Amino acid sequence: MASRRNRIVMKFGGTSMAGIERIRNVAERVRREAAAGNEVLVVVSAMAGETDRLVQLCREAAALHDPKEYDVVVASGEQVSAGLLAMTLQNMGLNARSFMGWQLVKASGVHGNARVEAVESALLDEALKGGTLAVIPGFTGLAEDGRLATLGRGGGDTSAVAIAAGVKADRCDIYTDVEGVYTTDPRIVPKARKLSQVTFEEMLELAGVGAKVLQVRSVAIAMRENLPLRVLSAFEDKPGTDIVAELSGDQMERNLIAGIAADRNEARVTLTGVPDKPGTVATVIGPIAEAGIQVDMILHAATPDSGASDLTFTAPRASLAQAMAVIEQRKAEIGYQQLLTDDSVAKVSIVGVGIRSNPQLAATMFEVLAERQINLLAVSTSEIKVSALIAESELELAVRVLHSAFGLDSPESKGQAA
Amino acid sequence: MASRRNRIVMKFGGTSMAGIERIRNVAERVRREAAAGNEVLVVVSAMAGETDRLVQLCREAAALHDPKEYDVVVASGEQVSAGLLAMTLQNMGLNARSFMGWQLVKASGVHGNARVEAVESALLDEALKGGTLAVIPGFTGLAEDGRLATLGRGGGDTSAVAIAAGVKADRCDIYTDVEGVYTTDPRIVPKARKLSQVTFEEMLELAGVGAKVLQVRSVAIAMRENLPLRVLSAFEDKPGTDIVAELSGDQMERNLIAGIAADRNEARVTLTGVPDKPGTVATVIGPIAEAGIQVDMILHAATPDSGASDLTFTAPRASLAQAMAVIEQRKAEIGYQQLLTDDSVAKVSIVGVGIRSNPQLAATMFEVLAERQINLLAVSTSEIKVSALIAESELELAVRVLHSAFGLDSPESKGQAA
Repeated sequence: MASRRNRIVMKFGGTSMAGIERIRNVAERVRREAAAGNEVLVVVSAMAGETDRLVQLCREAAALHDPKEYDVVVASGEQVSAGLLAMTLQNMGLNARSFMGWQLVKASGVHGNARVEAVESALLDEALKGGTLAVIPGFTGLAEDGRLATLGRGGGDTSAVAIAAGVKADRCDIYTDVEGVYTTDPRIVPKARKLSQVTFEEMLELAGVGAKVLQVRSVAIAMRENLPLRVLSAFEDKPGTDIVAELSGDQMERNLIAGIAADRNEARVTLTGVPDKPGTVATVIGPIAEAGIQVDMILHAATPDSGASDLTFTAPRASLAQAMAVIEQRKAEIGYQQLLTDDSVAKVSIVGVGIRSNPQLAATMFEVLAERQINLLAVSTSEIKVSALIAESELELAVRVLHSAFGLDSPESKGQAA
Repeated sequence: MASRRNRIVMKFGGTSMAGIERIRNVAERVRREAAAGNEVLVVVSAMAGETDRLVQLCREAAALHDPKEYDVVVASGEQVSAGLLAMTLQNMGLNARSFMGWQLVKASGVHGNARVEAVESALLDEALKGGTLAVIPGFTGLAEDGRLATLGRGGGDTSAVAIAAGVKADRCDIYTDVEGVYTTDPRIVPKARKLSQVTFEEMLELAGVGAKVLQVRSVAIAMRENLPLRVLSAFEDKPGTDIVAELSGDQMERNLIAGIAADRNEARVTLTGVPDKPGTVATVIGPIAEAGIQVDMILHAATPDSGASDLTFTAPRASLAQAMAVIEQRKAEIGYQQLLTDDSVAKVSIVGVGIRSNPQLAATMFEVLAERQINLLAVSTSEIKVSALIAESELELAVRVLHSAFGLDSPESKGQAA
């Protein structure tokens, strides 16, 4: 019975492409997937260091530079990688060719940070059906104005997933310099375990709170398109982590909590003595959001019967100065007494699809932190995540005790600390 | 009276683009041309060393690599230069943008060594008329197969001239690391003079015999399109050399001879004892030409009444082994006795439009060389050139005495020897 061949997108980052020797290693992995009978598309990043070099040239040319010209300059890095990998594959006797981003990927939005709008899959279909391996530069496409576009730093993952969705691939494999997705940062907890499966939702929450294995945007696209992802090492032959819509049957025994996420990129802002009336939160948070600052936790606690209240929110540290400026401009309108900030806070989160049906997991988290005298400055919950804002100095302790309490510690210490 | 603005193409080579400081220098020259009221297009090469680096990466990837993928890799160098120059011009407050080769230049022929077929001038016209400076990567275009093409090493000059012709430019200025076209190589004759004008024909002959200021192909296109060229220094504010269809009135007093060309890239092949009959030359030279080897001088000298003759021709040294193989394969067919080669020969030529109407110039050349006991191994003449094949060891002496005899020595020694 002739079955349709599997179509697989393999994505390799800059570290995997750093030099001809490593490109040969990539080519060998591609060869194996093709030899296994798959149709293979390869999406590549610029050789490690190359994008930084090009960005630096742009900065030297003009401190404030036109993003359209920035795209022209930096897109060249991925172009070079694609040509070199295609040559290397051909040199191994394989049928391969490169395509350029502008031939395949229609992008929209702003230059330098564009979105993938559509993939011209006909060209690729033709090549793949003819037995040709397609090599595609990640990160680049054609903007609506007919000029080169780039997808923003780290856009290679997003390219790969968008292209995989565009060509209806069966799977998108992201090769990286880690072995997969871990229960937490192994630099904090050497006993962290590699997950064999994690759901899209969990991965989104883990990525969103600091587990930087994958670009958040790429996970969101894969989830929308129901495209299975796999994260695995470009350098070691080990099974990676599958990112899927639902855990498979044999994974049901997996812990209710997939992992513990740590995020140091937090700052806390408190306005004291704001009026305790409807609309106060909107008056403060509205302009902050309009300024493009991502507000995370929001607490509005009224002092009973006083008519006054305190409003606290968290935002990325890098946006703290901008957030303060926005608020100070509106002091009269908002009517607060003091504007207090704290950038020595951090966020610890438990993430897992089990949280949805097990409300006691949140309670367990608070108990565990309380036992260690870790003070909760704020708490937020979602369907599959519970986050606590704590002092940054207590972050590593918090991660370790939660990792242990939720049964995530590896039976044997693997000594994976950096 | 509103007159049409002049439209000028400025071409800058890799040395001129080597680093942001030099790119600023280029931008300043562009600014001045624009400030003078001209519509300006700038064609740029890759930053010095960049093309070599990319070619080396290709070689490491695969000793024999697909020219289509080579084009993808090496075209990136010019792309980066164009983006950086556009940014730099914008940073000076000028209206500028880059275009990509694939947006503008239709190429034909083989990948890695394509020809410019057409220039999509509508996009450029629109930009120029709107007061925008157009920055274009040289050397690259779009092949007939819809993929990136490159024009072969040094193709930047050809790009510039083809684009200038395509947009009906009034002039194409080639900025380089020499100050213009000289009467001979200043490394051989320190008293060499910079020519203020030279005709296309003269330039073709000078370029063809080793004066490597400009790519021969670019001069041929300019001549066909009757597009004035100017060669000038990217680093010094000095008048360069105008390359024109006919010398202007004030140049009629210029020497009859424009310059003395020296070419060490010669080898001599002699077949002794070939039949002295019609068709012998064709039997030998035909297969050589078919093998893509450029034969230059041909001598066929019969020994009276013997029925046998010697056939001598010259070819580039790099092709000598190939030429010998072609001949040895056909030994029976040709019927020669000995195959002799000599790669210690060189060619010295006098070049000038004056030769056409002054046949005695050739005689003068032979006398001057004879006075110095320089033996002529072969001679060839064209409308505006007389060449003599001599021993390579006598080349520099020959150039010096001819330069002096034809009145080309600068009145004052300028010490331009390298």
